[in-house]
This record gives sequence, C-alpha cells and structure tokens, in this order.
Amino acid sequence: MANYTISERAKNLTSSAIREILKVTEKQEIISFAGGLPSPHGFPVDELKYAFNKVLSEEGKIALQYGTTEGYSKLREWIVNHFNNSGSNISIDNVMIVSGSQQALDLLGKTLIDENSDILVESPTYLGALQSLSLYNPNFITIETDEGGLIPERISSSITNNTRFLYALPNFQNPTGRTLSLSRRIKLIEFASDLKLSIIEDDPYGELRYSGKDIPSLLTLSKNTNANIIRLGSFSKILAPGLRIGYIIADKDLIKKLVQAKQATDLHTSTITQMVVYETIKNGFLKRHLPKIRETYKKQGLCMLDTMEKSFPKSVNWTRPEGGMFLWVTLPKNINSNELLIKAIENNIAFVPGNSFYAKNPEYNNMRLSFATVSEEKIQKGINILGNIIKNYLNI
Amino acid sequence: MANYTISERAKNLTSSAIREILKVTEKQEIISFAGGLPSPHGFPVDELKYAFNKVLSEEGKIALQYGTTEGYSKLREWIVNHFNNSGSNISIDNVMIVSGSQQALDLLGKTLIDENSDILVESPTYLGALQSLSLYNPNFITIETDEGGLIPERISSSITNNTRFLYALPNFQNPTGRTLSLSRRIKLIEFASDLKLSIIEDDPYGELRYSGKDIPSLLTLSKNTNANIIRLGSFSKILAPGLRIGYIIADKDLIKKLVQAKQATDLHTSTITQMVVYETIKNGFLKRHLPKIRETYKKQGLCMLDTMEKSFPKSVNWTRPEGGMFLWVTLPKNINSNELLIKAIENNIAFVPGNSFYAKNPEYNNMRLSFATVSEEKIQKGINILGNIIKNYLNI
Repeated sequence: MANYTISERAKNLTSSAIREILKVTEKQEIISFAGGLPSPHGFPVDELKYAFNKVLSEEGKIALQYGTTEGYSKLREWIVNHFNNSGSNISIDNVMIVSGSQQALDLLGKTLIDENSDILVESPTYLGALQSLSLYNPNFITIETDEGGLIPERISSSITNNTRFLYALPNFQNPTGRTLSLSRRIKLIEFASDLKLSIIEDDPYGELRYSGKDIPSLLTLSKNTNANIIRLGSFSKILAPGLRIGYIIADKDLIKKLVQAKQATDLHTSTITQMVVYETIKNGFLKRHLPKIRETYKKQGLCMLDTMEKSFPKSVNWTRPEGGMFLWVTLPKNINSNELLIKAIENNIAFVPGNSFYAKNPEYNNMRLSFATVSEEKIQKGINILGNIIKNYLNI
Repeated sequence: MANYTISERAKNLTSSAIREILKVTEKQEIISFAGGLPSPHGFPVDELKYAFNKVLSEEGKIALQYGTTEGYSKLREWIVNHFNNSGSNISIDNVMIVSGSQQALDLLGKTLIDENSDILVESPTYLGALQSLSLYNPNFITIETDEGGLIPERISSSITNNTRFLYALPNFQNPTGRTLSLSRRIKLIEFASDLKLSIIEDDPYGELRYSGKDIPSLLTLSKNTNANIIRLGSFSKILAPGLRIGYIIADKDLIKKLVQAKQATDLHTSTITQMVVYETIKNGFLKRHLPKIRETYKKQGLCMLDTMEKSFPKSVNWTRPEGGMFLWVTLPKNINSNELLIKAIENNIAFVPGNSFYAKNPEYNNMRLSFATVSEEKIQKGINILGNIIKNYLNI
C-alpha cells in the first residue's frame, strides 16, 4: 500500500500532451506528423555495429567501467576541434558530455534556477525545455517572436534583477522551424553583453540545413565579447537518439558546477556509447553521412510545402524552414487546433496542437507538423486530407 | 566572460572527497583500496560484444531510436519475473529503468522531497545518496547503526509529520559492508507499516553474497503488509557499470510520477544498452556468471581480512562482510583517518576516510577499504604497509 507524499515540485508534473498523442499514433494506419523522432533511415546501423565491436574488442574493460563525470576525453576533444574549426575559441575545460541534451536542461535548471528566478523563453518554444526547467519553479517570461524568430529588442524591457538566462533555439526552432537571422544574432549578442544576460543556445538541428546558407552560431559570434553563451548540442539528430549523447559548451567554472550536479544526478553518461560515438565520427564520417540525412529531410520538407500550397486554403499560413524537422501552421483565429486534432485523428492524421509550446498566453490556432519520418507519398496523402478537414471546418 | 548566478541549491555542491582521491590514486604505483569500482575481470566483454552485434543486426533501427521513458518492456518483464521468482508480487507497472541507480536517487529526490522534508538515513550511509538527495534540501535525520546494521527501534523516535522516507542499504552496505539481519528486517517492515514510513531499499550488492545465507529483501518481506518499499537495483555490479542501467521497483502510482520526472530529466535511458542487457541475461546468463564474480570478491575479501588479522594492531576493529566490495575499519578514537590518509598516500596506499559517509556528526576514526579491484598479492602488501603506518601512528 502506498503512503507517501509527492513533493510540491512533482505535483506540477503531468503527462505531456505529445506523449499521449504519440501513444494514439502508434497505430499503423495513422499518418503522423506529430512525432519528434528523426528518420530511422538516417541511422548508420552498420557503422555503429562496427564501432561497438571495435571498442569492445580493443578497449572493452574501459568501455564497460565507470567513467569520469565530465565525459570521454577524446569525444570532448573532437567537439573542441569541431567548434574551433568553425570559428569558436574553446578548450576541453569548456565541454562536458550529457545523456542527451534534455539532460543539459535539467542540469542547467539545477545549477542556475532558484525558485521564482526569471527565465526568458521564446514564445512559442521547445516543450521539453518548459517541462524540464519547470521542475525548478522559475518564473517564465516570454519573448515575442515573428517570422524571423525572437525579437532581440523585446529583451531589454523583460529583464529583471532576478533574470538567470534566455533560452533560445536559433536554428530551425522546435516547434516553428524558424531561424534567427545574422543581424538579429549580432544584436542579441550585443544585448547579452550589455545586459549581462546569459544565453542558452540550444541547437539540436543546426547540422540539418538543407537550403540557404549557414549562419554563425551565437557561440562563435560571442568570441571577443562579454556575452556568456551556454551551447547545447546533441548527436541524436545526426547519428542516433537511442545512444543518448549530447553535450554542453560553457564557461569553465560553470562546467565545473554542472559536473558536480551531474555527479549527483547520474554519476556519468554511459562510457561505451560515448566511445562508440567518438569511434564512429573521428575520421570525418559526418561529412559523408550528413548530406544523406539533409537530402531526405529536404525532399520530405519540400513535398510537404508543395502539397500545402496546393491543398490548404488561402487563409492558412505556414513557415518555410531551411532545415530541421518541423514546420508551423497558423490557422485562422477561429480554428482551435485541439478540436481540429480530434477530427484529424478520426481521419487517421495526427499533428501536435501549438498551444503546448507556449510558457504563457497560449495561442490555439497553430499546429506543429513534422516531416522527418513520413514518406513523400504519405505526406501528400496526409496533407491533402488535412487540407480537406480544414476546409470543411471553415465551410469552404 | 561569465556573468551568471549559481542557484542556492548548487552552491551546496562540492567536488566529492572520493573523487579528488580517485584522481591521486590513478598513479600506477599506488595500491588503492579507495575505489568504488567493480572488478573489470568480471565484465563479460565477449557476451556483451555478441549482444550488441545481435541487437544491431536484428533490431538496429529500434535500438537506435528514441524509446519510452518507462524503459524497454522486455527488460522490465525480466525484472518482474526475477523478483516474483524469489517471492515478490510485482507487475510491469511497478518497474521503470533508470540510467544507473544513482539516477533513481535523483528522481526520488525530485519526486518525494520538499525543502526541509525529513529524510532518515543510516549513519554512516552511501555518500552518493547524500550528495544526490542534498540537491533537494532535505533535513537529514540519522539512524544509529551497530554491527547488525541499522537499529529499527531507533526509528519511531526519529519520525516526524514531515518524514518522507528512510533510505537503507540492507545488504553489504556501502561503506560498512554490514548486512541487516532477518529479524531486524521483519521489525523494520512492521515499523514501516505501522508508522506509514516509506523505505527506499537500495541494493546494488545483494547478488554478490559469497558466504552465509541469502536473506529475503525488504520488498519480499513487505508482501501482504502495508509497508511501502521502493527498491533500487542495478546491473553495474553484476554486468558492467559503463552501461549505466539500473531500475526502480515501486507502487505503480509512484512509478507514474517518477516516469514524468524522468521524462523531464533525460527523456529515457539509452535504448540500445537496455536491449543489450536484456539480450545478455534473458537465458540465464547471470546464473553462470555471478559465481565467478562472487569467487573473485570472496578470495580478495578473505585475503584482506586474513592480512588485517595478522598485521593490524589489536586496538583496531573491522567488519567481516559476507558479500559486496567494502569493509569498514574502526581505529582507536585518537587516530583521525584523514591524517592517516596523508601518511598512507606518502607510502602509496589509498583508502577513503570514513567521515564523508555521515550525514551528521561524523566520526573521524574510520576507513572504508575496497577489496574489489585489488589482487591478493597487492592486498597483502598494501594491508601490511597500512598496518605499519597505524602502528607507527600509535607508537607501537
């Protein structure tokens, strides 16, 4: 029999809408644009099989033993070189490995948030970050966004003495697919520097650009400024999420504190999966591999955009991402996307209603669509059905 | 440049004494009894290599994809059968997989501790639990122990309206190596039931018994009572810690809450390592494998006890564990084991001073010695040197 008391903190936890939806959409016949999963066609199964075998054959007893909390040094060094080759200036003391970049959010919450600390977030923003940071009871302050992503000018009026950081997703944002322009990034770094505002730059999708030009990261742009950028990265979208390998790049004193927090949290990330990631990528594998993933997502993303152009009514708008896995559809104000979802599921289509992605003042007329795991044929079929449902709803 | 504020919670975090010591003892010439690592000779490298290869060959795209937060169903079912075969009565809804049982402590802290909640802990207790639970700012209340482990009668006077749970390690406790007797376990279950006290039964070493008879777990003894037992288990000491696979067995509503907390914390534990653990153990591998680990630890443990008998002065006492990896040495009151450690390291011997293992009122005349990773030859040499250091200290 259970006789225990749930903490106030944990009472706020609820099963996520996305998670419940994913359960429904596990049925085979559903065409699901709801998932946040990357395409399994992009998983380098053979290369990883080779790497597991090699690591266990050559360094099995190390790979299976406890490891350091900071993470596998060779992988941390690879990350240092990767970023310094694209204009950053970091060293191994700025890098730690985490169990997927979701864990980075938990550790940053532990380390930087006191109860009622003010945290700035984009509106809308990544649902998983809201869930993770919420456990530390911050006060979320939302920063307005438009087609160009977050509006830096909105920051100064939102900052208080108790602001701990801005959480931002500059590339192909989840949920909107939007990317922050270079000019806005430069402005953001200026504000961060002047206002002593730390910025968490969460960038799981940055390597998945399939059109347009790469824009320097906030981390790179912060070089030789006083801005404090905490960058989160992940191997989930470029290798495989089942390995649960991500990383944090930050000021070295903050890394020390985060390492202490991680030690208390889970000691360290799996030694063998870290070594396997390093073994797989150490000789330039990603240069050959990433173009294949980008090509898949480009085809599927463009197919979705084309089909929407043909089958969605004119009163519906959507973003045109240059990479990543998601796009964001804005319906006429009188359509509630939660109601639309019920009709969609009756027709074997799923998506995520937009309101879950707002920390405050949710809008109800948006949908997040993922094109990452759906074939072009199913995208065409599914988007056409969705278009008809919207038209019916609008009595067109 | 860094301009950020560390949370009050994280200010309490410090680098652990053990961790700093481990750094010193990485030097080859040191004989270290300080480690908490299991013996790498016990890692089934070939079997795990085979399992990684098989899982990736047969179910690669599943093993590399995101998984459910609860964990891999087949592994959870294996755990259910394992416990029900030894007298428990649990179902899959009572089981979740975690990233090593250290993560279980973090999730239980998140879910069950409010600031200043009272938490009962053995004195001394596992240092990693103190570090992990401390992040949620509880008030630790210590329960006295003797050669027979925690004294159940001490509990009733320690309970308040705000007590959340007792954290206990009934088998071959870290740091003392002591085991709670059957009669004390039965009494503890009675108290837990009458006083509505939840007990966290942390048992990473239970399968490592090398002499004496198995004693039923608190989980098994709680069957048909009102006691609420939360059991933590781990594959770190029976397969390999580098995989980071542990589990929690608890009331199913509490599991639901812990799953929500884990979702916010790291989404889920690595899919592939969970599948590989299941693949390795599903056909009775542990029945063949565990006797080998037990034999190693038995030989090394007995060697340490024998050598201590011969070379430690009569005024020194120690525990005689029947399993696990550690024993606990009590020095005369006038010896501070931190000072002794300095002399020991000068002589290329390392151990962990006992005071770190106390939540309150530390004693300074104890040492934790591990025999898990040291050969018999080095144990004899190291214990003899340590005996001489103690004798010198006592001017014998």
